Amino acid sequence: MKKVVLGFSGGLDTTYCVKYLSEDKGYEVHSIIVNTGGFDAAELARIEAHAYALGVKTHTTVDAVKTYYDRMIKYLVFGNVLKNNTYPLSVSAERLMQALHIAEHVKTHQANAVAHGSTGAGNDQVRFDMIFNIMIPGVEIITPIRDLRLSREEEITYLKNKKVDMNFDKAAYSINKGLWGTSVGGKETLQSKGMLPEEAWPTQVTKTTGEEVSLTFEKGELIAVNDETFSHPADAIQHLQSLAGPFGIGRDIHVGDTIIGIKGRVGFEAAAPMVILKAHHALEKHVLTKWQLSWKDTIANFYGNWMHEGQILDPVMRDIEAFLQSAQQNVSGKVFVQLMPYRFQVIGIESKYDLMNSKFGKYGEMNNGWTGDDVRGFSKIFGNQTAMFHMVKSDADEKD
Amino acid sequence: MKKVVLGFSGGLDTTYCVKYLSEDKGYEVHSIIVNTGGFDAAELARIEAHAYALGVKTHTTVDAVKTYYDRMIKYLVFGNVLKNNTYPLSVSAERLMQALHIAEHVKTHQANAVAHGSTGAGNDQVRFDMIFNIMIPGVEIITPIRDLRLSREEEITYLKNKKVDMNFDKAAYSINKGLWGTSVGGKETLQSKGMLPEEAWPTQVTKTTGEEVSLTFEKGELIAVNDETFSHPADAIQHLQSLAGPFGIGRDIHVGDTIIGIKGRVGFEAAAPMVILKAHHALEKHVLTKWQLSWKDTIANFYGNWMHEGQILDPVMRDIEAFLQSAQQNVSGKVFVQLMPYRFQVIGIESKYDLMNSKFGKYGEMNNGWTGDDVRGFSKIFGNQTAMFHMVKSDADEKD
Amino acid sequence: MKKVVLGFSGGLDTTYCVKYLSEDKGYEVHSIIVNTGGFDAAELARIEAHAYALGVKTHTTVDAVKTYYDRMIKYLVFGNVLKNNTYPLSVSAERLMQALHIAEHVKTHQANAVAHGSTGAGNDQVRFDMIFNIMIPGVEIITPIRDLRLSREEEITYLKNKKVDMNFDKAAYSINKGLWGTSVGGKETLQSKGMLPEEAWPTQVTKTTGEEVSLTFEKGELIAVNDETFSHPADAIQHLQSLAGPFGIGRDIHVGDTIIGIKGRVGFEAAAPMVILKAHHALEKHVLTKWQLSWKDTIANFYGNWMHEGQILDPVMRDIEAFLQSAQQNVSGKVFVQLMPYRFQVIGIESKYDLMNSKFGKYGEMNNGWTGDDVRGFSKIFGNQTAMFHMVKSDADEKD
Amino acid sequence: MKKVVLGFSGGLDTTYCVKYLSEDKGYEVHSIIVNTGGFDAAELARIEAHAYALGVKTHTTVDAVKTYYDRMIKYLVFGNVLKNNTYPLSVSAERLMQALHIAEHVKTHQANAVAHGSTGAGNDQVRFDMIFNIMIPGVEIITPIRDLRLSREEEITYLKNKKVDMNFDKAAYSINKGLWGTSVGGKETLQSKGMLPEEAWPTQVTKTTGEEVSLTFEKGELIAVNDETFSHPADAIQHLQSLAGPFGIGRDIHVGDTIIGIKGRVGFEAAAPMVILKAHHALEKHVLTKWQLSWKDTIANFYGNWMHEGQILDPVMRDIEAFLQSAQQNVSGKVFVQLMPYRFQVIGIESKYDLMNSKFGKYGEMNNGWTGDDVRGFSKIFGNQTAMFHMVKSDADEKD
Repeated sequence: MKKVVLGFSGGLDTTYCVKYLSEDKGYEVHSIIVNTGGFDAAELARIEAHAYALGVKTHTTVDAVKTYYDRMIKYLVFGNVLKNNTYPLSVSAERLMQALHIAEHVKTHQANAVAHGSTGAGNDQVRFDMIFNIMIPGVEIITPIRDLRLSREEEITYLKNKKVDMNFDKAAYSINKGLWGTSVGGKETLQSKGMLPEEAWPTQVTKTTGEEVSLTFEKGELIAVNDETFSHPADAIQHLQSLAGPFGIGRDIHVGDTIIGIKGRVGFEAAAPMVILKAHHALEKHVLTKWQLSWKDTIANFYGNWMHEGQILDPVMRDIEAFLQSAQQNVSGKVFVQLMPYRFQVIGIESKYDLMNSKFGKYGEMNNGWTGDDVRGFSKIFGNQTAMFHMVKSDADEKD
Repeated sequence: MKKVVLGFSGGLDTTYCVKYLSEDKGYEVHSIIVNTGGFDAAELARIEAHAYALGVKTHTTVDAVKTYYDRMIKYLVFGNVLKNNTYPLSVSAERLMQALHIAEHVKTHQANAVAHGSTGAGNDQVRFDMIFNIMIPGVEIITPIRDLRLSREEEITYLKNKKVDMNFDKAAYSINKGLWGTSVGGKETLQSKGMLPEEAWPTQVTKTTGEEVSLTFEKGELIAVNDETFSHPADAIQHLQSLAGPFGIGRDIHVGDTIIGIKGRVGFEAAAPMVILKAHHALEKHVLTKWQLSWKDTIANFYGNWMHEGQILDPVMRDIEAFLQSAQQNVSGKVFVQLMPYRFQVIGIESKYDLMNSKFGKYGEMNNGWTGDDVRGFSKIFGNQTAMFHMVKSDADEKD
Repeated sequence: MKKVVLGFSGGLDTTYCVKYLSEDKGYEVHSIIVNTGGFDAAELARIEAHAYALGVKTHTTVDAVKTYYDRMIKYLVFGNVLKNNTYPLSVSAERLMQALHIAEHVKTHQANAVAHGSTGAGNDQVRFDMIFNIMIPGVEIITPIRDLRLSREEEITYLKNKKVDMNFDKAAYSINKGLWGTSVGGKETLQSKGMLPEEAWPTQVTKTTGEEVSLTFEKGELIAVNDETFSHPADAIQHLQSLAGPFGIGRDIHVGDTIIGIKGRVGFEAAAPMVILKAHHALEKHVLTKWQLSWKDTIANFYGNWMHEGQILDPVMRDIEAFLQSAQQNVSGKVFVQLMPYRFQVIGIESKYDLMNSKFGKYGEMNNGWTGDDVRGFSKIFGNQTAMFHMVKSDADEKD
Repeated sequence: MKKVVLGFSGGLDTTYCVKYLSEDKGYEVHSIIVNTGGFDAAELARIEAHAYALGVKTHTTVDAVKTYYDRMIKYLVFGNVLKNNTYPLSVSAERLMQALHIAEHVKTHQANAVAHGSTGAGNDQVRFDMIFNIMIPGVEIITPIRDLRLSREEEITYLKNKKVDMNFDKAAYSINKGLWGTSVGGKETLQSKGMLPEEAWPTQVTKTTGEEVSLTFEKGELIAVNDETFSHPADAIQHLQSLAGPFGIGRDIHVGDTIIGIKGRVGFEAAAPMVILKAHHALEKHVLTKWQLSWKDTIANFYGNWMHEGQILDPVMRDIEAFLQSAQQNVSGKVFVQLMPYRFQVIGIESKYDLMNSKFGKYGEMNNGWTGDDVRGFSKIFGNQTAMFHMVKSDADEKD
């Protein structure tokens, strides 16, 4: 019997896929859910039960939170990556991690096919297709919802006919939660104008009094929060999320270019990611040189965009990671952040690698390591070519 | 008699310079103040009176607000320039504008020398020196405070001896105000940690109820606020500042690399600049293509850094401006922003050039202009080289 | 009757297309050939006669040499564009120009379909498809050779059955000639190793004695060769080609990434393009500032790659062109080049904008505009941050 | 007695320095010569004898060829670095290596001062000053020729008075030789026009019959020439130089921006470097992905420029090296090159990592791994945004 591995979230689309693949297409279905931080144990158990009730041969739950951090989030922090200066790539990175685990599962099961529930209108189809084409070339990719251009209503009718028992109500807002943020889509985000209403946000604001929090970084990685050390940065991130989330920090709307060319708009909340990225960047501003900061920006911007487009397996990504890792050598120290309702402020840093060191002078106040004449000479030479340019141009213009 | 043109703000350092240049060095002093938006008429009159009282031969006030916008701010908006993703270059750009006007004044007066009150510890000395070296080569540059390494106390003693009557108290916070933001320095910013206290901020928070404001851009320039049209974008900026400033919006601390190599930290408030930059960027995300957004980022980042370092006269800046101007062709439309105490949120945009147009499909929901098979083919080809890379690598590794 | 516009070169593939489209598919065929410099009048007449003999309804010849220069080649010169530092994009640019004219022809004829003779294995299919999708959305694109996966033999059999009279011999080397170079493919280029044999090159070496030639540029454009002025740069290019071609200059093999992901290898000869690009770059090295040269490189590299991938209609290309045009302001002067068999050498330049002007000092010999102390101060400040970095690091390491 | 370490080449300038420092200034002089490949044993012995004859306390010869390769040349190869697409940075890199060794020597001797013979007109003064400021902060830097603005004639008069016995004739061409090339300066290079005459080139052309040579790279490093393996890449480079040099390969003139702002022009010959760089790049074009090639170019271009400007100790250079090293993972294989008088041609490559593999299809001929429909879908999506852009623009323009 032909085997298919199906990425399974338990929602309408992938529920449809189980029935369609097993009953209409005669596949032995092996469902898999890859948890990148969005599901708790109860939810995972419920999804497993649902899968078996639908008739899958096996269902597998992968806890991918730490590998997700190690392979992707780590470098997004190193690079201070915010797509279009706004979005921490919450969903983009997650999908790739899921696709990589699903592809491994296909190999393990020696399956003939792999299936995902994507429609033809979003980014995820490209991410899944591409990772599968690369990791498991030759394995057929089946995408029932996309291929049959099914509407929500058609799926429900089909499943009701199959006597599937689940909640068919459409949520007002579609939520996707993971370690690196939660996306929120709804009628407001399908247009170019309109903010999500307060009640649409998964994390409601329950803290109203400001708190100070300290983040300790070691070579660019978050290892402690308020001096409490964690065995893995993913744990530190989740702890910080529990502190910062209830402030409603890190909510925004991202407008971006999808891989398929259209513009997409999506709300998101990402309290811990935003605090970490800004804190990490603040620390870097103190410990890195000007050109480290500049090149990190340029190269990490590409890294984020290319990951967003699903290209995590291009070897150039390994090269960029080597750059980013090297640049984190001195990014160690503590960052102090004030959390407040809906916002936060980086208060300052402490680091033995801090280049803002009064030993060398104080900006605008005092110069210890050089003289005014040094700067006068510097200014002369630093502007030398431009001065020549204007002299030559002025001479040339006179000749005309 | 030898003539010197002196950039004059009326503060301790430039007051010292007038006396030193005229009485100790025997120059005929022509003072000049270039207003880039930080002074009102009363302050300018007071500064003029002070200059004449000190004995300058002539004093000139230049209203440079609109030329400042036209030559610099406009392109900072086009490029969404925030140094280190934080600072709108408030002071950096201003100094260059002042230096350019001072150099023109030297030419007009056929002066033998030009003087500025910079110390040896900051960025401004480089900006002034360099613009003067380029614009008025051969004219002597005199910098008494830097050259004599004078302390504040030495200057005061000197001036008291000269019977100069002025307020010698040191303000707790040094403030520099202009069209594109106000910088605030104090004891907290001389260290790597510490936020400015509430009372240090020049604009106190007096609005506590949110307001919605609309910004209308025409080819990237702000032409109207709440549908009120202004004859020049500089006027629109100042009007927006009057609306957004009292919310305490746009306060932050910038840590950056000075031109002379040390790290500097400075507080700033920049309500209108921050709202304009984010609103402009939001509009661009809707109307520009992916690679326009990407290249604008890269090139504008350099533009901002190079301007910060005083290199506005390098012809590469003209080339970048040509790029940025070209990219604004379709950046026309209205942006809606919610102002709230200490923060703001872009709500959305309206533009006839909006590429997020439901005619082409809705992200994640619907695809009108292409089929699932098109995307399947796209994914195949888009990942083709990386797939080959992994096959070749896997074959090669097996051979080893 | 349904109308189709067919890009027609008179070769086997497009000959097949005429018969297939008119006789098998019932289309009224309007053939068009866009000459970008590769055909002379006799060839064009022969191709027209062939088209009518095959039964096209109309055949159109477009002389696109000057518009090709104006829209594309000009900017490739401004940017000194050599793909992978080797290939002047001879064919890439040409195909886009052809596609643009064909699309206009479709509009003029209000045709229902457009056809091209591309196979499924190269870059051209993407270039044609994409320009047509953008310029004439909704018009059906027919690609018989690609769609039917036809072999050469199958096409010949079909055409012989249709009594088509033409030369069916396969040339040992496929040649594509245009204003900006001639590509040469053959058995050697289908492998990773092997040089084209002497006889494969379309232009044989007939000059063996060196010649000096001067090229006059005005704002980056070639306007005269050996002081002979031309009314259009395309004419100057063709004249220079007649001088430099017989030396066998500009022959090389390019290995590059195709749009579809595979690596491709192709020989080319491009005497005039290579001489012009190197001469233009030499002139720029004398008249542009350091950062103009640097940014031109970065941005033009992208421009060339993006054009190669067919993306000439992305508005970012207009923005880059604005940058490049601005940077040519002072690129005026004369460049002297020694032509020799198989190679050439730029001898030097003359320009009133030359920044290498002994008035400012002679490199390594003399400094007029600054002192040794200026440089000493410059070195101090220029290395200031790196010096601090090493001091801080050394202190921090000691603490460990 | 105060100690000074003096970088010593035995030429006029550094000979002057020994006498001036020891006899006029009362220093104990410790001379040092750092051989980066330009001197043979006899020359080094002659220089040592000359130093002792002048009265130095100690003279040290450092063989730095291999460390020079390991710390700098390796990365210049990885990055295919040619400044302004022309110059392999022969002298730039060398000076930095020399400065680093001299600084170490200062530490070893606990000297009070360090001296170099630079004038005030070139790049080298900045390179030496800066490395010394960073490596041995606080140690006085003495530059007699620069400080005293000495002319050649003044130096000779001084030395003759001191009874120094050496050849005071000025060579028609100044030569600087090292592992990575030889620079040649003379009257032609002091102007914007003029080629060096045949006799000025240090290596005369003695081979006239073409030779094929193979270069074997292992992770980007040259390990064998014509299948002869060398224990260190520096040896392989020198062997290749002995094969390619007599062809007169790699001669050119470089026009570039000096660190101090003026334009400089210098001839150079660099047979082995040019052959290696082009061969290495050819191999990379076969084994790296498109974006690896693109980012390597961008980042290595900066690396070369920043090294040229003496900034080798900026930690960003370590980060870039990490990137470049990572990108060399698969750059292993053999490259075949045809050497001919004055030129060479890369003939092809062999590598198990070659991505040009007929298994995937042949460019323009055959597509194995995808279908025409895949490409049709790709073209649709790849041009999707630009198509939307033009539709939106066309609609918007109609509304106007």
